[in-house]
Amino acid sequence: MPLSTQPYKGARDFYPDDKRLQKYLFSQMRDTAEKFGYSEYDAPILEPLELYLAKTSEEIVNEQTYSFTDRGGRNITLRPEMTPTVSRMVAARRQELNYPLRLYSIPNLWRYERPQRGRLREHWQLNVDIFGVEGIEADHEIILVADTLMKSFGAKSGMYVVRINSRKLMNMLLHEYLDLDETQTSALIRLIDRMHKIPEAEFFSQADMLLAPAQRESGLGGKIATLLGTKSISDLPPEIRSHQSVLSIQHLLMVLQESGVKNAVFDLTLMRGFDYYTDIVFEVFDTHEENNRSLFGGGRYDGLVAQFGVEPVPTVGFGAGDVTLLNFLQTHQLLPELPPETDATVLLIGDVYHTVQPILARLRSEGVRLAVDSSGRKLPAQLKSAVKSGVRYVLFLGEQEISRERFKVKDLLTGKEEEHGLERTVAILAAQHHSDDELA
Amino acid sequence: MPLSTQPYKGARDFYPDDKRLQKYLFSQMRDTAEKFGYSEYDAPILEPLELYLAKTSEEIVNEQTYSFTDRGGRNITLRPEMTPTVSRMVAARRQELNYPLRLYSIPNLWRYERPQRGRLREHWQLNVDIFGVEGIEADHEIILVADTLMKSFGAKSGMYVVRINSRKLMNMLLHEYLDLDETQTSALIRLIDRMHKIPEAEFFSQADMLLAPAQRESGLGGKIATLLGTKSISDLPPEIRSHQSVLSIQHLLMVLQESGVKNAVFDLTLMRGFDYYTDIVFEVFDTHEENNRSLFGGGRYDGLVAQFGVEPVPTVGFGAGDVTLLNFLQTHQLLPELPPETDATVLLIGDVYHTVQPILARLRSEGVRLAVDSSGRKLPAQLKSAVKSGVRYVLFLGEQEISRERFKVKDLLTGKEEEHGLERTVAILAAQHHSDDELA
Repeated sequence: MPLSTQPYKGARDFYPDDKRLQKYLFSQMRDTAEKFGYSEYDAPILEPLELYLAKTSEEIVNEQTYSFTDRGGRNITLRPEMTPTVSRMVAARRQELNYPLRLYSIPNLWRYERPQRGRLREHWQLNVDIFGVEGIEADHEIILVADTLMKSFGAKSGMYVVRINSRKLMNMLLHEYLDLDETQTSALIRLIDRMHKIPEAEFFSQADMLLAPAQRESGLGGKIATLLGTKSISDLPPEIRSHQSVLSIQHLLMVLQESGVKNAVFDLTLMRGFDYYTDIVFEVFDTHEENNRSLFGGGRYDGLVAQFGVEPVPTVGFGAGDVTLLNFLQTHQLLPELPPETDATVLLIGDVYHTVQPILARLRSEGVRLAVDSSGRKLPAQLKSAVKSGVRYVLFLGEQEISRERFKVKDLLTGKEEEHGLERTVAILAAQHHSDDELA
Repeated sequence: MPLSTQPYKGARDFYPDDKRLQKYLFSQMRDTAEKFGYSEYDAPILEPLELYLAKTSEEIVNEQTYSFTDRGGRNITLRPEMTPTVSRMVAARRQELNYPLRLYSIPNLWRYERPQRGRLREHWQLNVDIFGVEGIEADHEIILVADTLMKSFGAKSGMYVVRINSRKLMNMLLHEYLDLDETQTSALIRLIDRMHKIPEAEFFSQADMLLAPAQRESGLGGKIATLLGTKSISDLPPEIRSHQSVLSIQHLLMVLQESGVKNAVFDLTLMRGFDYYTDIVFEVFDTHEENNRSLFGGGRYDGLVAQFGVEPVPTVGFGAGDVTLLNFLQTHQLLPELPPETDATVLLIGDVYHTVQPILARLRSEGVRLAVDSSGRKLPAQLKSAVKSGVRYVLFLGEQEISRERFKVKDLLTGKEEEHGLERTVAILAAQHHSDDELA
């Protein structure tokens, strides 16, 4: 039986058209991160399973990791997220590294999930993290990078909204204002995290079930409902409004406004799945009615680096996946036309493969990206194939062209065919190349 | 107990300096492949194990794969090489794809081996393949791409040699000229593949042991020794010299010479480990006495695509790994100095983080890559940290600078400190940026 030609379930083959699109995404990601002084890093896709046991969500570790034992008996896994890895790397060089430390990476991540829209088993994710800044400046910068990334793809303020909340505020509200115990708090946090995915009635009946009879009788259910109905900071109970975490959010929103982020809002129902967040959390939401969902997010996680037995390092970061971003760009029709990597295809007139070598070398050394039709087919078949390939120019080369040093260049876009000397030929073809560069 | 900060054994963490070097390698690889009209593709790192059972060497499949069973019961593996994957992808779209089809990729590959110089468990490998050309033109082009890659790093002809052989020639020699049977042939091929790694006496005693008593008595051992001592095509027995495979090698060497590859030689002892090669094979060897080893290689494999139940597609390709290439570049002192991705660090004078935002946004929109010291430390501490980071420029920003629109720019390389308006500041910092681009 022949072997299957399908890629692994929930993962993607990237043919040149797909890869070109991915490279465009990655190039915008790199440019954005580097604009803010971030440097790229990377790490092995295999990590010890124990790296994820403490702080990654239980659902991911128990049900979604690609874990196995290697030939040396080590329990390892394909990384499901990058945050534990970058924390490990920073911990390893805690003393030597230079702070504020700005790092980014675009790793591929694996989770065993049922493939669906916006969610695949393998995806790539831009990770941007700043280490060593305790103040709100780091939270501000990370959200500004996320916003600049969106704008780098041509997204307008109306297409998305940045929702901001604070774990510190939520802890205070749940523990002190609502007076819930540890178990109730973590159960309610998980419930709020699913709030927008389940019907409102179901949400409140489940919230009610978390309460003790005395709490229910004292009207705590209603207090929770009122609290979660809060739409802005001024809606918060007065005794809460003066809390440090609220003042931080207010300051953050103000500095964001000042730096051009007009669509950031406070959202008390924003939780984020990971257990490691310690303060500000945020998410970028698509506002399009057909793709009304979280695109990506992040927040402050001051405790992860210390897991490795070194002094803690304050950290803020986000991770933005390629699959959800692509959905966003498609929904809002923001994907550009991307030209092929090749400037021209050389069509050979007669048995001249050998003879044309010096000319090809010269054109290539001038920066022209040249494919040669070395199939030995007749000219019409060569031309047909070049047209199908999507290349912009073809260059006809035969004995005559070489001896006369005049080259026939055909523009497949306009249909225009012209004869030029070597220099002009290079100029036309390389110009095509350079315009690609500017696009990318 | 704190978690370990070490990366998985035999794999590498890439801190920004390491990653910058890898990006330099990848950028030369991409530029080289695209010069010849190749387009980039990619695929999931997980593949079904059966993809490697037929044609990848037994040693790799049985002893070196990272294989496991996923949560759905599929037998999968981290890819140990890319050739079966690209063959799968071409087979999946056999009819729609356009030939000659030129594809390249820089995947990471995994093999469970004892880590040593030039060999790690995870490495990245440039894979370049041309599909659909039966003639020697494809073999020529692939070797020319490999040679151009070497030259793109500044390697001179004397630093490496390209060794060329033909599986067709070897099959003919072993079966017909030496009259060996199937078992003897494959055993001798494996032995020749290890020829330069074991002492000569051991090689010939092992070769002798493969022979039947009658063969030994007829002097076949001596015939094998003479044959393997062949240094050039003219040394071959006359009845062999006119064989089609020898004429092909001669023609190939001639066209290579014509296209500027002066250091290609015929080498009868070159085998290549993989079973799937069908004709020309080649390897790039380092000639430095401290690193005298194979750097990478490839060849023609016309049978792989047909394993997927479609019509065969003639194919030639090579794979060049990053670890051996880095060893080569280090040994020959060809590694360039690579500047950081950041043009300047902004040092804040006083509590102005909020106030400087519009200026930062403007500088960044002009293409300047700016880190901000948002640590809240005193100026000398900020400056010290910027110097340590390796950035070229620092930019001092305080109330005064902003109100006067004059910016103090310090060049950390020359020590020169100057005051400029916004436009000139952008010009200086962005120029730094553009010179990086040219280098990359």
